[in-house]
Amino acid sequence: MELIKITVYGLNFFARYIILSVTGYTGKVRHLATIRDVASEAGVSVATVSRVLNGKGYVNENTRKAVEAAIRKLAYKPNEVARSLYHHQSKLIGLVIPDITNPFFPEIARGVEDFFQEEGYHVMIGNSDESREKEVNYIEAFSQHNVMGIISTSSDDISQWAGLDIPVVLLDRIQDDFPSVCADQEAGGKLAAQILLERGSRNITLMRGPHHLRTAQERFLAALTELGRSSARFQVLNTAFSYHHALETAKQLFDCYPDTDGIIAANDMVAAAVLREALARGKKIPDGLQIIGFDDIPISQLVYPALSTIHQPAYEMGMEAAKLLLECMHQQTNLKKKIKLSIAFKDRETTRKEGG
Amino acid sequence: MELIKITVYGLNFFARYIILSVTGYTGKVRHLATIRDVASEAGVSVATVSRVLNGKGYVNENTRKAVEAAIRKLAYKPNEVARSLYHHQSKLIGLVIPDITNPFFPEIARGVEDFFQEEGYHVMIGNSDESREKEVNYIEAFSQHNVMGIISTSSDDISQWAGLDIPVVLLDRIQDDFPSVCADQEAGGKLAAQILLERGSRNITLMRGPHHLRTAQERFLAALTELGRSSARFQVLNTAFSYHHALETAKQLFDCYPDTDGIIAANDMVAAAVLREALARGKKIPDGLQIIGFDDIPISQLVYPALSTIHQPAYEMGMEAAKLLLECMHQQTNLKKKIKLSIAFKDRETTRKEGG
Repeated sequence: MELIKITVYGLNFFARYIILSVTGYTGKVRHLATIRDVASEAGVSVATVSRVLNGKGYVNENTRKAVEAAIRKLAYKPNEVARSLYHHQSKLIGLVIPDITNPFFPEIARGVEDFFQEEGYHVMIGNSDESREKEVNYIEAFSQHNVMGIISTSSDDISQWAGLDIPVVLLDRIQDDFPSVCADQEAGGKLAAQILLERGSRNITLMRGPHHLRTAQERFLAALTELGRSSARFQVLNTAFSYHHALETAKQLFDCYPDTDGIIAANDMVAAAVLREALARGKKIPDGLQIIGFDDIPISQLVYPALSTIHQPAYEMGMEAAKLLLECMHQQTNLKKKIKLSIAFKDRETTRKEGG
Repeated sequence: MELIKITVYGLNFFARYIILSVTGYTGKVRHLATIRDVASEAGVSVATVSRVLNGKGYVNENTRKAVEAAIRKLAYKPNEVARSLYHHQSKLIGLVIPDITNPFFPEIARGVEDFFQEEGYHVMIGNSDESREKEVNYIEAFSQHNVMGIISTSSDDISQWAGLDIPVVLLDRIQDDFPSVCADQEAGGKLAAQILLERGSRNITLMRGPHHLRTAQERFLAALTELGRSSARFQVLNTAFSYHHALETAKQLFDCYPDTDGIIAANDMVAAAVLREALARGKKIPDGLQIIGFDDIPISQLVYPALSTIHQPAYEMGMEAAKLLLECMHQQTNLKKKIKLSIAFKDRETTRKEGG
């Protein structure tokens, strides 16, 4: 590759490109000390300070001491942006989520962030609303800021990752070509159906989440198969995940299926809305109607009766995805790993007691 | 200021500092086209491409056309990191929040992000847990990444902002020296007390949020004053905001004050926990016990009976804070503006009807 010859103080360098902060510049400058300040404080050249910082090249012992003193005095820290450009690296991670106002995702985001904070990285969050356009914008912004890796819990359409030379880990989403971290959706859906059947429901409404979400589909299909094998009556009702839709879906449910005696909700938001509507209509819970949610978000313990639900380890999922992404970053490739975390049934107050 | 003399292709430049991407570098490189690729594609120097990009300095018309063609062909976009270093500017905003798993803050974060996305900025979120140390770490990381502004909804202790030459806007927090955006806490606290009194509560428990949060203090004091003026009996109970503490606080409340017939909760999380505990103890709501929350987070509509609460316009607060920060960024100073958004009472199912 062709290189530019650069002469600084008579020294020759060869560079792929250069960025000049030209004289007469009047923009806003941080009060943070720059490498220049350190150089003048120590009465040496920037190149010398740089040699001391990078521990490369010869530096006279007294000069080194002077530079280190100046660094301490000015509390100098190398500018991340400069480092970023120099190393083609930043300390940034990109996280795409569908909507942070959905209580499931903050826990996930928190897990990702806590892990990377320990590792000295910082997380940039983007809400995609599962809009492909928004998602593409974020991915572009992320690579423009030299993020070192991306975690996406957004749309399952991953064509936008093509040609992007940044490690990507899918979280709560699944695609054959990418590493991913999920809870065991099949086991969750199956378990929910088994519990309702075991505990006496005979007319079950199975609520189906967004069709384009493979995770929602997997647990739905597993529950569906389980119900299909049973002798119980059952019906399927489609619903969105947002709490805005949850309440009207709940009304619709009891209008269409007044005799339902067991409900497998698409997630806890939906389950809470269904619970509210059931109570408003005077249903006896759990004797007349059992409800099982999915996720185990905080509110599932705050409602009365408390929601029985399938626990997804959201925080751990975020942690695991972060750990996996770091692994990919170190090996500079998308490992073909698929991590599946196990789910658990939270036996609370919207299901009858064992053998009930 | 002393400058470094740099010679490139025999041309002399004077620079405050230089970043060299040295030969033999083997790190990871984006597939995105660089200014070098554009230069070689157009068969001109990087300096020429840069002159075309910045519209500065003379460029021969045909050369300009060639460069623009190369830019189109390679779909070249100036690297944000390079731009950031060159202009001492990034397209990043820092947002510090106490805990994104508290349902009040995602709405706020969403408002901030939606506004800045429109403006072409991206938001870096940090959870401080109201730990001063974590907050300081984030502020450092933010300035290391040349964020152009910071919005903080974290601790009220703002000594850490001292000497930081970045515009800062406080959100849902108040400090005399900083621009801030808040809901009208006093009006909210006063209104909550007035409604309980008007609607017949005579033994009111006032729940007091974290003492170090000026917003929580303001609404608490306003409600306290209102109760103090009335003939009703009342007592004060301290509580944290997190849902982890909410449930035990609720138990404590009914153990200590079994005869309470009106509760002003510290926020909706706490109100939901109190509601749950009241129902579990067979209280009649609202006839035997009225409850008013604060915030109007999504779940307040999902519980049964639905929470009557003081609505804080969280999303709008985020939007307003973002707008105010952008103003500060343009004027390169912390404007002494304090924006107070008005609150509203959401008359739902945990308070009696008017005149009741």
